[in-house]
Amino acid sequence: MVQIRIGFVGDSITHGTGDETLLGWTYRVGQTEAAKGHDVTVYNLGIRADTSLLVEARWEVEVMSRLKLEMNCGTVWAIGINDSAHEKTVNTDGLRVPLDKSVDRISRMIAAAQAIGPALWVSPTPVIEEMMPIDRLPGVVYDFRNERIQEYSSAFAAKAMEIGVPYLDLFSSLAGNPEWEESLRASDGLHPNADGYVMMAARVTAWDAWRNWFDA
Amino acid sequence: MVQIRIGFVGDSITHGTGDETLLGWTYRVGQTEAAKGHDVTVYNLGIRADTSLLVEARWEVEVMSRLKLEMNCGTVWAIGINDSAHEKTVNTDGLRVPLDKSVDRISRMIAAAQAIGPALWVSPTPVIEEMMPIDRLPGVVYDFRNERIQEYSSAFAAKAMEIGVPYLDLFSSLAGNPEWEESLRASDGLHPNADGYVMMAARVTAWDAWRNWFDA
Repeated sequence: MVQIRIGFVGDSITHGTGDETLLGWTYRVGQTEAAKGHDVTVYNLGIRADTSLLVEARWEVEVMSRLKLEMNCGTVWAIGINDSAHEKTVNTDGLRVPLDKSVDRISRMIAAAQAIGPALWVSPTPVIEEMMPIDRLPGVVYDFRNERIQEYSSAFAAKAMEIGVPYLDLFSSLAGNPEWEESLRASDGLHPNADGYVMMAARVTAWDAWRNWFDA
Repeated sequence: MVQIRIGFVGDSITHGTGDETLLGWTYRVGQTEAAKGHDVTVYNLGIRADTSLLVEARWEVEVMSRLKLEMNCGTVWAIGINDSAHEKTVNTDGLRVPLDKSVDRISRMIAAAQAIGPALWVSPTPVIEEMMPIDRLPGVVYDFRNERIQEYSSAFAAKAMEIGVPYLDLFSSLAGNPEWEESLRASDGLHPNADGYVMMAARVTAWDAWRNWFDA
């Protein structure tokens, strides 16, 4: 039996937005291991609409308040899709975070978080482009494009390999998958509904880097 | 249909520790409203073993990162049981936070949080005394006593009335309840298992102050 406290750091897709059960993928992966008898504490640190810049301002106090060196702990990082979004407001008209800044900032945070335990990196996910842009907040329009998400994900994968952090490429795994697309269409084209979160959770719990935390 | 983002600020019982489904009461109350068609974002900000002093160090960056004036938001505060615990370590031997400091600090945080939306205050819950103390962390022993928890809860209730914040007295509602006690016994005497979290959630969703957020 493994006792572990895990901080999941990220955005709305880390949070589980769109999931009518509210579980998202983070609680589902926790439930899967708990059902096998592991003692898993899930700390969900996903915030809707967060970019790497917004995460940088809060992750340290949030992670260090929850995870301690004297406990068995780990972090899972799933951010970047909002970095790749094009933002249009009265004052802005461009990428939320340029690719090089995004890669550099996320990898620095992950490297720092390794001080309290192992870290994993999960990629952004594909969207339904014809359901874009997203204009849920007044005065703000976010446009997500798969080509750009893929470009960010490829750069994240390369950086993860360089710094020796396991990377799960959900983008390649889910792009063009009809069940994934159906799940996005049932929601807002950016966030899946529960069915899509089940698909994400299945890929995380089958991932050898995740399995190493429990089956080693 | 109500759209609302709610920050639940607190400790392990806010987090949902002991619940084999990982849902705790916060996700259950969210699920209940979501099932009625409301658009509820649950931000669970419970941290295991946190006192009011530890919450004071983090709540502002955590709440203000998640909840914004331009959205419909609220906070639910459920802390204090760890304040009432007697802590024994190599360096300490006494109450974790004395009653007057606990009341003062929690009420100040709640008053400040009302700047971004309405706040609710949920009481600590009864324990099984014969299962005390808790010595899960090496070198730290926490002793919880019902008489002391009740004393803190009564003082919280009086302060809540004074500052005009709705207070849910779960202590009185659950003390001596055989199903609650069975749920604690199935866990560690401090945290309930899923059955107890279901009981807590039912009381929160039936609470008129909570209902006002959705049924007004």
